[in-house]
Amino acid sequence: MPQHTVKAYGDELNQLTAEVARMGGLAEAQVADAVDSVARRDIALARAVVERDARLDAMHRDIERKAIRLIALRQPVASDLRRTLAAMKLAVDLERTGDLAKNIAKRGLILAEGEPMPPLTRSIERMGKLVSMRLRDVLDAYAAAEIDRAIAVWNTDDEVDEHYNALFRELLTYMMGDPRTITAGTHLLFMAKNLERIGDHATNIAETIYYEITGQEFTGERPRWSPDAAEAAPEPLSPV
Amino acid sequence: MPQHTVKAYGDELNQLTAEVARMGGLAEAQVADAVDSVARRDIALARAVVERDARLDAMHRDIERKAIRLIALRQPVASDLRRTLAAMKLAVDLERTGDLAKNIAKRGLILAEGEPMPPLTRSIERMGKLVSMRLRDVLDAYAAAEIDRAIAVWNTDDEVDEHYNALFRELLTYMMGDPRTITAGTHLLFMAKNLERIGDHATNIAETIYYEITGQEFTGERPRWSPDAAEAAPEPLSPV
Repeated sequence: MPQHTVKAYGDELNQLTAEVARMGGLAEAQVADAVDSVARRDIALARAVVERDARLDAMHRDIERKAIRLIALRQPVASDLRRTLAAMKLAVDLERTGDLAKNIAKRGLILAEGEPMPPLTRSIERMGKLVSMRLRDVLDAYAAAEIDRAIAVWNTDDEVDEHYNALFRELLTYMMGDPRTITAGTHLLFMAKNLERIGDHATNIAETIYYEITGQEFTGERPRWSPDAAEAAPEPLSPV
Repeated sequence: MPQHTVKAYGDELNQLTAEVARMGGLAEAQVADAVDSVARRDIALARAVVERDARLDAMHRDIERKAIRLIALRQPVASDLRRTLAAMKLAVDLERTGDLAKNIAKRGLILAEGEPMPPLTRSIERMGKLVSMRLRDVLDAYAAAEIDRAIAVWNTDDEVDEHYNALFRELLTYMMGDPRTITAGTHLLFMAKNLERIGDHATNIAETIYYEITGQEFTGERPRWSPDAAEAAPEPLSPV
């Protein structure tokens, strides 16, 4: 195989990884901005998040196209194949993360029309910061190909769930206390759920990095959120 | 290439497609059973749905493993490569669909502890039937490789959203009328959201089938659910 072809092949792979990393940076910013826009009731920022989401969709399509092309024309094997497949998987998680950030921003726009609810939005902000941090850590782990950092993110998934459960109870108590807050409260409930799902995508990303580097599936027992423990409270509904 | 190798290769591909189809059948049953368990307050059925979900996770891992192995060892190109990649994608959507069905069943178990709410559970049942039907249709389209049927499913995504929006308003009105129903109401809200997301997965599957058959990306403007129109009601929150 002539040297220039070999080089071009390596370039394509590096380009793919770089594009995933860039997409990750954008997704991370979208989540942080979405949460800020809710916390600060910043309509302009929320609108910007909604508009910017199209870029993530385009990057997702582009990465998938390039990865498929690479598999078809270069027929990578072993670690190159894993790297290519990992790029495809990560692009999916990042695209979904962007959709969730956009949804949070849209709900923020609706909430901005109503009364402020400082304590509740502060709780959303706290949870948002935690989720953004995990997303940042796992994307750092990807950029640096650091498996320990990826595993660390994987291991802290239940912190997000704890935040979600506490927030869920707080919101229900609030809604029960004042039925006029129910509509706004449900938007906040879905925001919290969206943040919890973004946390799940960070966990997926950690698993994909583990697979890319080791060639093994991550076999830890995954801490998946489940409604029983969580949403039983505050009403006396005995958990399953 | 000796004949038996060629044959084995074709067998592997067919086996992969067949396993995806079987996984689809199981996911379809999980959704239908989860909705039935809620409608009939059937605790045994809900528990069965929760337990059976592990099989979908195992099938997902197995399909992915086989697809990667096939790409690495057989280096398929053109339609064979698309078929292999499509199998991987579909397994992801079906695994997520199973998670959502499991979540619905778990919430059903919690609701079964409280007071029945016939009108609301009937609405969930109606939406569940619609979503199950779309899932069945798109899986038929996959088994028969019928692109028109896949596109038909893709085109009816907004029916699910309309159901979701109506149900959302109905639930909020109910919760406002009687704050004691708020906890149960939120479980039903999340069930409705889970069904709406299962509808999205059916739409993803339709797009994947289109790609597998044509080699083109489906470029229709996707009817994505958004909170603005929907969840503005019933409180006077002007849509964005």
